[in-house]
Amino acid sequence: MQRQTRIVIQNVLPQIDCGSHFIKRVVGQNVTVTANVFPDGHDVIACAVKFKHESDSGWSEVRMTPTGNDEWSADFTIERQGFYSYFVEGWVDYALNWQHGIERKIQDNQQVKSELLEGVEYLDEIYKSADAAEKKLLKTISANFASEKNYTAGVENAVSNELTEIFIKYPQRFLANKSGELRVYADRRKALFSTWYEFFPRSASSKDGKHGTFKDCEKLLPRVAAMGFDTLYFPPIHPIGEVNRKGKNNATHAKAGDVGSPWGIGSKHGGHKSTHPDLGSISDFKSLVKKANSLGIEIAMDYALQAAPDHPYVKDFPQWFRWRPDGTVQYAENPPKKYQDILPIYFESSDWLNLWKELLDVALFWVEECGIRVFRVDNPHTKPFYFWGWLIAEVQKKHPDVLFLAEAFTRPKIMQELAKQGFSQSYTYFTWRNTKKELIEYVEELTKTEQREFYRPNFWPNTPDINPYALQSSNEAVHLQRYFLAATLSSSVGIYGPVYEHMIGEALPGKEEYLNSEKYEFFKWDWDKQNKLITIITKINQVRKEHPSLQQTNNIHFCDVDNDQIIAYYKFDDSLSDETLMILSLDPYYPKQATVRLPVESIGNQPVTVIDLITGSSYLWDKERNYVELHPALPFHLFKIQK
Amino acid sequence: MQRQTRIVIQNVLPQIDCGSHFIKRVVGQNVTVTANVFPDGHDVIACAVKFKHESDSGWSEVRMTPTGNDEWSADFTIERQGFYSYFVEGWVDYALNWQHGIERKIQDNQQVKSELLEGVEYLDEIYKSADAAEKKLLKTISANFASEKNYTAGVENAVSNELTEIFIKYPQRFLANKSGELRVYADRRKALFSTWYEFFPRSASSKDGKHGTFKDCEKLLPRVAAMGFDTLYFPPIHPIGEVNRKGKNNATHAKAGDVGSPWGIGSKHGGHKSTHPDLGSISDFKSLVKKANSLGIEIAMDYALQAAPDHPYVKDFPQWFRWRPDGTVQYAENPPKKYQDILPIYFESSDWLNLWKELLDVALFWVEECGIRVFRVDNPHTKPFYFWGWLIAEVQKKHPDVLFLAEAFTRPKIMQELAKQGFSQSYTYFTWRNTKKELIEYVEELTKTEQREFYRPNFWPNTPDINPYALQSSNEAVHLQRYFLAATLSSSVGIYGPVYEHMIGEALPGKEEYLNSEKYEFFKWDWDKQNKLITIITKINQVRKEHPSLQQTNNIHFCDVDNDQIIAYYKFDDSLSDETLMILSLDPYYPKQATVRLPVESIGNQPVTVIDLITGSSYLWDKERNYVELHPALPFHLFKIQK
Repeated sequence: MQRQTRIVIQNVLPQIDCGSHFIKRVVGQNVTVTANVFPDGHDVIACAVKFKHESDSGWSEVRMTPTGNDEWSADFTIERQGFYSYFVEGWVDYALNWQHGIERKIQDNQQVKSELLEGVEYLDEIYKSADAAEKKLLKTISANFASEKNYTAGVENAVSNELTEIFIKYPQRFLANKSGELRVYADRRKALFSTWYEFFPRSASSKDGKHGTFKDCEKLLPRVAAMGFDTLYFPPIHPIGEVNRKGKNNATHAKAGDVGSPWGIGSKHGGHKSTHPDLGSISDFKSLVKKANSLGIEIAMDYALQAAPDHPYVKDFPQWFRWRPDGTVQYAENPPKKYQDILPIYFESSDWLNLWKELLDVALFWVEECGIRVFRVDNPHTKPFYFWGWLIAEVQKKHPDVLFLAEAFTRPKIMQELAKQGFSQSYTYFTWRNTKKELIEYVEELTKTEQREFYRPNFWPNTPDINPYALQSSNEAVHLQRYFLAATLSSSVGIYGPVYEHMIGEALPGKEEYLNSEKYEFFKWDWDKQNKLITIITKINQVRKEHPSLQQTNNIHFCDVDNDQIIAYYKFDDSLSDETLMILSLDPYYPKQATVRLPVESIGNQPVTVIDLITGSSYLWDKERNYVELHPALPFHLFKIQK
Repeated sequence: MQRQTRIVIQNVLPQIDCGSHFIKRVVGQNVTVTANVFPDGHDVIACAVKFKHESDSGWSEVRMTPTGNDEWSADFTIERQGFYSYFVEGWVDYALNWQHGIERKIQDNQQVKSELLEGVEYLDEIYKSADAAEKKLLKTISANFASEKNYTAGVENAVSNELTEIFIKYPQRFLANKSGELRVYADRRKALFSTWYEFFPRSASSKDGKHGTFKDCEKLLPRVAAMGFDTLYFPPIHPIGEVNRKGKNNATHAKAGDVGSPWGIGSKHGGHKSTHPDLGSISDFKSLVKKANSLGIEIAMDYALQAAPDHPYVKDFPQWFRWRPDGTVQYAENPPKKYQDILPIYFESSDWLNLWKELLDVALFWVEECGIRVFRVDNPHTKPFYFWGWLIAEVQKKHPDVLFLAEAFTRPKIMQELAKQGFSQSYTYFTWRNTKKELIEYVEELTKTEQREFYRPNFWPNTPDINPYALQSSNEAVHLQRYFLAATLSSSVGIYGPVYEHMIGEALPGKEEYLNSEKYEFFKWDWDKQNKLITIITKINQVRKEHPSLQQTNNIHFCDVDNDQIIAYYKFDDSLSDETLMILSLDPYYPKQATVRLPVESIGNQPVTVIDLITGSSYLWDKERNYVELHPALPFHLFKIQK
C-alpha cells in the first residue's frame, strides 16, 4: 500500500486482543496510554493521545512525552460514565526539526542564512492561526530572518524558547499518522469499590420455622448497613420449581414442605419476572429496594439463566430447550454434580434471537420496574460468551449504572473472557489461595499483567457453594485473616453470612460444601448476635470507606518480610495522599515475629509513623526494616503511613 | 454484535502487531501456530489451522492438539515461495461431546437409552459424506442405537474407538468460529543461510595505481568461491559525482585524480541505472554476474537512494529534492557527519508517486537486465518505512527470488520496523557485542523473542564504515574469534575484505573508522596472500555448508560454562539429525579452562563423542560437565555431537 506518512505507531497500550475488547475504568481514574512512535531517520517528532466520550462530537488531545527507546506516554482522566475512544496520532515536527538543525549548526560554527530564509515559511504557516500578540512577534522574527543585516537577531530568534513554544502550540501535522481506535468503558465508582453481603431472604424471619419475606429483610437492612456493607446480594427470589424439586442436603426427591433450591427457577407461580409468593410481591420487593437504597445499600439480583422443569418457558417456548428423540430434556449436569431440578437453556436454538431478546427483557424488567442496579450472574461460563457481550452492552446502553458480577469458578481463560465481554466484576480463585506464595502470585497476576485493565476481582472467602477447608475448622483467627486479606487485597469483597460471621464450618465429609446447606432449606438465624469477628469486620469496612488507598486493587506492592508466615503489602491512592501498609500473620495458632521492609522506593527513605487503624496504636518506624509480632487474637496490622 | 458461535479464538501466534505485518520463513521450514481456543462450559471442542499459498484456490487444514490451559498447537510446512495465509478455525464437536457424555454416564452406572436414540442424528449427518464401508458400519450402529433389545451392543458401539475415529474424520462444524487471517512470506533458502564477502571492485586490479574493472573482478571470483562465500557484495558501481567529490580520508575537497566515494552516486556519465565508466559497461557487469553465478556466487548490488549534486535526477526531476529559498539543496548530514557529496531525496515531495515508481524501476532494471537477485540497501532507515514495504513487495511480486539486506545501524525499533516491512535480512548490533553476557543477551533477544519471526540477522564483524575497536589491534585471535562467533551464532554472516583477512586495523584516532578508508580511494591488494586466518575462515565456511544445524539462527541453546571468558552454545537442525556444539574462549591472550555442561535436556543424558570439525580431533564426553582448555592460537571448538 502506498502511504506517504513517515511515522510508525505501534503497540498502543492498554489494548486487549488487538482492540477486540475494551478496557475498564471508573469515573475519576486515569488511562495511561503508551505507544512506540518513531519516524525514519533522525527527525524530531511529536505525538498525542486523542480521546473522546461517546457523547462528544470532537476529540480532546493530550500531548505525549517520550520515556526512552522510542516509547511515549500520556494520561487522560475519565470524567463520565460510558464509552471513551482513544488513539494515538504522531507527526514529524518539521518546524522543530528546522530549529534543532539550526542549533546544531550554530554549535558547529556554521552560517545559517539559508536556514533562516527557510524559517519564514514555517512562520507564515503559523501566522494564520496565531493570536494578535503572536502575530506581532512572528512578523518581527520573519523580518529578521529575511534581512541579512539582522542576521544576529534572526539567529537569536531562531533558537529562542519563545519560538519553540509557538511551534509546540501550533504544530503543523503534515503527513501525520494515526493508530487504530481503542475503547475504554467507564463505570460508576462502585464497579471498583464495593462491599458485599449475601444472605438468603427466606431465612430472614425471626420466628422459628417461618419462611422469611421481603418485609423481614427490610428489618435486617440496618444491621447490614451497620456492618459497613453497601451491596446486599440475594440468591434468586423467583418461584421455585415443584417438579424434581431438591430436598435437604441436595436430596434428589423433596419431602413435603421442602422449599427446594432457589436456583431451580420457575413454577406455576411464574418465572424470571416473578417473585416467590412466600417472599412477597413485586411491590414488596420494590419497597425493600427503596428502603435499602435509603440506607446506602444496593440490592444485587441473581441473574440465573436456567429453568425448573415446570418453568413457564418450557411450555411456552419449547424451542429454547434441547429435546431428545424420546421427548425429554437432559437436566443440567457438571459431573459428578447433577441438577435434576434444572433444565439448561438451549442457546444453539434456531430461535436464538428471540431467546436473547427475552433474556434481555428479564434484566431490563428488574432494572426498570424495581430500580435494580447490580446483578450477580449465576454460572455465566455455561452460556455463550458473545451473548454476554451483547446483553451487558444492551443493558448498559440504556442504564450505564448497571453492574454485573460474574460468578464463574472455572478455567483461567474462560474467567478472563467473561471479564473481557464486559462483566463489571468477577469472582476469583482467592477462595483457594492460602499460603503467602499463592496469595502474592495470584494478586500479582491480577494487578501486574494485562488483567489489571479488564478483570475487576471481587474476593469472597466463602459462598453458599464453597465452604473452603480453611474455614471448616470454625477457627476465629482464620475467619479474621480471610476477611482481612479479602478486604484489603481487593477493593471489592463479599461474604456469605451469617454463616461467615457466626463461624459455621460444618461440611459434607471431605468436601468444600456446607452440611445442611442453606441452598436447600431455610434457617432461623440469631440476627442480633454480636461477637469479636463482627466487630472487626465492621471496623475493617469502616477503614475501607475512609481510605482511598483501599478503594482500588491495582495499586499494590508486596513488601519483603523475613518470615514465610507473614505477608505485608503497601497500598496507595493515585494522589499518594493516602498510604496504608497491611501486615498479616497466616498462622492461626501461634504468635509470629518478623521484620518488614518499608517500601522506601515509594514512600522515601524517611522515618514514618505507622498508625494501626484497627487498634489505634502507633509506632515510629525510623529504619528500613522494622520488627513486628502478631498474635492469633488479632493477627494483623492495618497501618496508615504518616510521614 | 449478535453472534451465535460458542467458540473463542484468541492470541493466534505467530502474529506481528495484530497481523499488520507478515512473518517470514524459507521453503522447507515449518510454521508452528498456537492459539487459545475454548468454548463456554465444558464441551469437547476441536480446532484446526487452515493455510494456503497465495496461488492455491482452497485451504489446506491441519488439526490442532491441546497443550494445556486451553492452548492448542499445529504445524504446517512451507513448500513454495511467496505468501501463505493462515488462520485458526474452532468448533464445539457435538458428536464427541455426545460420546463423552455417554462414557461418563456409563461410568456412573446410568441408563443411556435416550442418549443412544439421540446418537442416530449424528450418524445420519455423517452418513451423507461417508464411504461405502463406513456407511455399512453406520447403518449397523444406527440400528443398534434404535433398538431396545440391542442396547448392550449399542452402548459398545457408542463408546467404541471406531466411532470416535469417524467423528474425528467427519467433524460437524456447526457454529464454528474463525480467527482473522495472518500471513507468512516464504523466501528461498538463501534468505536464511548466506555467507557474504564484500570488496571494492575498483581495488580489483593487480596493477599498481590502476582502477579495477569488472573484468578484474571476474578473476577474483575463484578466490571468493574457494573461501566458501556465496554472496559477493559490491559498494555502488554507478558513476561517481564530480561536484563536491570527497578526497582521501573524507577530505571535503577532492584533489585531481581522487576517485571519490562510490556512495556519491551520479554524474554526467549517468545515475542509478548506469555503471561507472572506469569499471566497465553494463555488458561487462552482466558477464561478471554470469560468471559469478556459474561459481555458485551471487552478486549483491548496493541500492543507495541518494544523489550526487551532478546526478541527472537533480536537473531532470528537481521536484524530488528539497530546494531552499536561496536555491540550494542541503547536503546529507548526520551530525557530526557531513556528506557534502550527497543530496538526500525528498520523499515528502508532492511528486512522490512518480519518485517511488522511478526507484522501483531502478531495482527492476538490475534484476531484469542483469539478473541481480540480492540487494544490500544503504541506510534504509533514512527513507520512509512504508516506501520499503511497498518497494520490496512490488519487486518480489514479479521476482520472488530477490532478497534485500537492510544496512541500518540505528535505534532498535527502527531496525525492527524495517524487517517488518519486508527486508529479508538485516545488519545487527553484533559488531559491538563482545563480552559473553552481551553476546548471549543479544542472541537471545534475536532468537527467543518475537523478533525470531521477522528479523533475520546477518552478522558482520566489520564493514567499510565500521572498524570496531576490538579489531584495531590486528590481533589474529580476535579475528578468528569474531568470524567464528558471527558464522556460528548466525546463519548469515559477512566480512569486508581483504581488510578483514589481512587483519588491517589502523583507525582514525579514537574512532571506529578505517584510516585511509577504501571508501575514498582504491588499493592494490595482494589477492594471492595466504594466512592461517584465511584457512580457518575457509574451513568454517565449509563446515557451515555441510551442517544444517548451522544453516539457521533460531535453533540455539547456550550452555552453562563455569568461566565468564568461555561461551558455549548448542545448535540443531529441525530433524535433530545434525547437532553441533560451539565452545569459544573470548580471551585473545591467554589459555583458558572451563567445564562445559552438555545440553542434556535436548541430547539426552548419555555419553557422546564430540568431533572437532576444524581439527578432526575427537573426545568421549561421558559426563554432564566436561573439561575444555582453549588457546589463543585456535580459541574454539566446533564440535559435531555424535551419539
